Amino acid sequence: MTPESVVRDFCRAVARRDVDALLAFFTDDAVYHNIPLAPLTGRDAIAGTLAQFITPASHVEFELVALASSGATVLTERVDRFVIGDKRVELPVMGAFEVTPEGKIRAWRDYFDMQQFTAQLG
Amino acid sequence: MTPESVVRDFCRAVARRDVDALLAFFTDDAVYHNIPLAPLTGRDAIAGTLAQFITPASHVEFELVALASSGATVLTERVDRFVIGDKRVELPVMGAFEVTPEGKIRAWRDYFDMQQFTAQLG
Repeated sequence: MTPESVVRDFCRAVARRDVDALLAFFTDDAVYHNIPLAPLTGRDAIAGTLAQFITPASHVEFELVALASSGATVLTERVDRFVIGDKRVELPVMGAFEVTPEGKIRAWRDYFDMQQFTAQLG
Repeated sequence: MTPESVVRDFCRAVARRDVDALLAFFTDDAVYHNIPLAPLTGRDAIAGTLAQFITPASHVEFELVALASSGATVLTERVDRFVIGDKRVELPVMGAFEVTPEGKIRAWRDYFDMQQFTAQLG
């Protein structure tokens, strides 16, 4: 179990749209920062935000365009796709993950243009 | 000269605010894509956009928060800083670079929230 394999597993796991299963990837005090918004600390806060885009979606997919790691830090380039009602959202994203020696994500920072996301939701 | 060292050199070089020196890092047909905007192809187009933020700035700095590579692809997490007139801009960015075997950048994709940039310019 390497930092890279943890992040690959996490990106695959989002497709199952199971918030509890995703929370198990994080440390109790993990920080999830969608860079255009305020950072969130802790599993409860992370659960709330994951639920916002996962629960209403009928399809979620994080396509890994590129992935590279340096020590405990894993950097990703992705296309995140959501189907929410009749809207298809395709969002170019880069994300940085920090993984503990125990294989838990303690930090997740996603960089994207918020307007590109909201414009597609109409 | 590795893909990583080319990207580190490039990020350091921006501080000199010399557009011609920066262009020398790119292939003739390089693609520069600020993800919220349309991609630009070729040195002339890249020069125009670099000049837009470098020429009016009295200070430019790309701080590397993290860097990792996989083959020819180098992924960066950065804080880009600009001083333009009396405005100080500090922009969280992730960028993906593709480097040729000859050590030239053939693709540069920067992911950031455009509103975070424009709001700081006032």
